[in-house]
Amino acid sequence: MLVKRAADVRLDEVQEGIGIRWVFTKRDGAPNFSLRVIEIAPGVVFAPHQHPYEHEIYVLEGQGVVTSPQGELEMQPGAALFVAPDELHGYRNTGDVTLKFICVIPLPE
Amino acid sequence: MLVKRAADVRLDEVQEGIGIRWVFTKRDGAPNFSLRVIEIAPGVVFAPHQHPYEHEIYVLEGQGVVTSPQGELEMQPGAALFVAPDELHGYRNTGDVTLKFICVIPLPE
Repeated sequence: MLVKRAADVRLDEVQEGIGIRWVFTKRDGAPNFSLRVIEIAPGVVFAPHQHPYEHEIYVLEGQGVVTSPQGELEMQPGAALFVAPDELHGYRNTGDVTLKFICVIPLPE
Repeated sequence: MLVKRAADVRLDEVQEGIGIRWVFTKRDGAPNFSLRVIEIAPGVVFAPHQHPYEHEIYVLEGQGVVTSPQGELEMQPGAALFVAPDELHGYRNTGDVTLKFICVIPLPE
């Protein structure tokens, strides 16, 4: 069994104000999916994009919106989002603190 | 895209003081894994058990311990646990409030 403090996992900056902590991946022996924490600074936009794999998301802290085929939907602590394979999605932090959410994706990533 | 408030998902009691919210499953179109929230009342023990699939866990609220092959390890908010396939694991709420954690498992469940 592995136990980590997610906040101790390195934050990989993917663009200014957006970071990903790869908490569990195949390097930890995960056989099927990776658990990441994504952090977006206030005011920052993660531009809409798509890819052939799904996301299962749980919002931990902060406030934001997700852009979706249905328009902008609220992200707040306790909200869970399912982004289907190939579905367009993006994020925007609309609050005053870092928007943090868990985002699980299938391997190999 | 689906957005839910995890707290609105039905809590299925698996034993007195232990409930599971199946937030995203194959019924939502999830192709690879299910995201659940597990809730354990103060003082309650989820007895050690094992199964051939892994868990990737993130602790949301409360205090507890996980029993593992290495002994008891702390569960507190922000802690992430990887339980390998077939690894023995159990949980005990050692605090005064409900212990809540995300627990992701591969399909078919």
